[in-house]
Amino acid sequence: MNYPNGIQKKTISHNTSYGNRGMNLENDLNITNEFYRNTDKAYIYKKPTPIKIVHVNYESRNLAEIDKAFFTEPSTTDYNGIYKGKYIDFEAKETRSKTSFHLDNIHKHQIKHLNNIVNHGGIAFLIVRFVNLDQTYLLKAIDLFKFIDTYKRKSIPLTYFQENGYIIKTKINPRVDYLEIVDKVYGGIL
Amino acid sequence: MNYPNGIQKKTISHNTSYGNRGMNLENDLNITNEFYRNTDKAYIYKKPTPIKIVHVNYESRNLAEIDKAFFTEPSTTDYNGIYKGKYIDFEAKETRSKTSFHLDNIHKHQIKHLNNIVNHGGIAFLIVRFVNLDQTYLLKAIDLFKFIDTYKRKSIPLTYFQENGYIIKTKINPRVDYLEIVDKVYGGIL
Repeated sequence: MNYPNGIQKKTISHNTSYGNRGMNLENDLNITNEFYRNTDKAYIYKKPTPIKIVHVNYESRNLAEIDKAFFTEPSTTDYNGIYKGKYIDFEAKETRSKTSFHLDNIHKHQIKHLNNIVNHGGIAFLIVRFVNLDQTYLLKAIDLFKFIDTYKRKSIPLTYFQENGYIIKTKINPRVDYLEIVDKVYGGIL
Repeated sequence: MNYPNGIQKKTISHNTSYGNRGMNLENDLNITNEFYRNTDKAYIYKKPTPIKIVHVNYESRNLAEIDKAFFTEPSTTDYNGIYKGKYIDFEAKETRSKTSFHLDNIHKHQIKHLNNIVNHGGIAFLIVRFVNLDQTYLLKAIDLFKFIDTYKRKSIPLTYFQENGYIIKTKINPRVDYLEIVDKVYGGIL
């Protein structure tokens, strides 16, 4: 779709102004997934932001314009796709904390969704970036569940990621090579 | 999320006024996928409508309100998920024609996407409803590719669906039991 540059810029400024909702990690993952697609390694996409459209203006000179809509809660995770014939599904979040990842960052139904994926033989995990430590971890969904079931705490301490998660090194290309970790961690079923 | 009924109603009226873009089949599939989830049979979801957000009003009394956005072309198909451990991916379309399904209904990159899924061991197909015949067909992606490669035609005749596709009977629950056909057609790899 072609928009005037002004609009493009606005969109970007929207994205950045739209709180620190994991935009940097999101951009890194978008670039990484594009690399995986371009190299025919995997087909993993970020789902569009779920919104509830309230009104659309069809009189707009160009194309139909949505002039009233709201963000809605996602019912699933942000990313899914196929890798080596397997269904892969994950949620990615950033935290500014240097010591822990608050579970409020993940909706209950997203955790339930990850659980369903694991139960049905899919590959499911979290990618959590500690922005101020410049560390990005992959945590298997089963280790997320284990934490929730074992400790009745509202946040996962960094040490839990260090002991049960896997560091994803940031590279030039692919930026966040999480499939390298997936190969290592899930190699048995791939 | 809670909205006043008025807004809910508006949303619905938007959906129906939004052209006959497969809303009926879409509703049937949403109900069907919900049934599959409730019975823990499969976890298949429709992706949110892809839009480009141009402006968000954060001063809105309630939650952040998107007051300028546009629909964008989907880069993938509308539906994907996991069934019996396999990645499943499909596009669903309605046509008012009684004789053929025009290929303009599917974007080139959606066909490429289906091709990538097949090449990577996923289950990929089309669901096409001939509204005025009240017939819904599942057509395997490979049979879609075969048609495109064999005949240089812009539309797939109904007869091709009759000979190469599979009728999906409309039932009470699940409404459009396409996984029954998937079991039959892809049974070997499930």
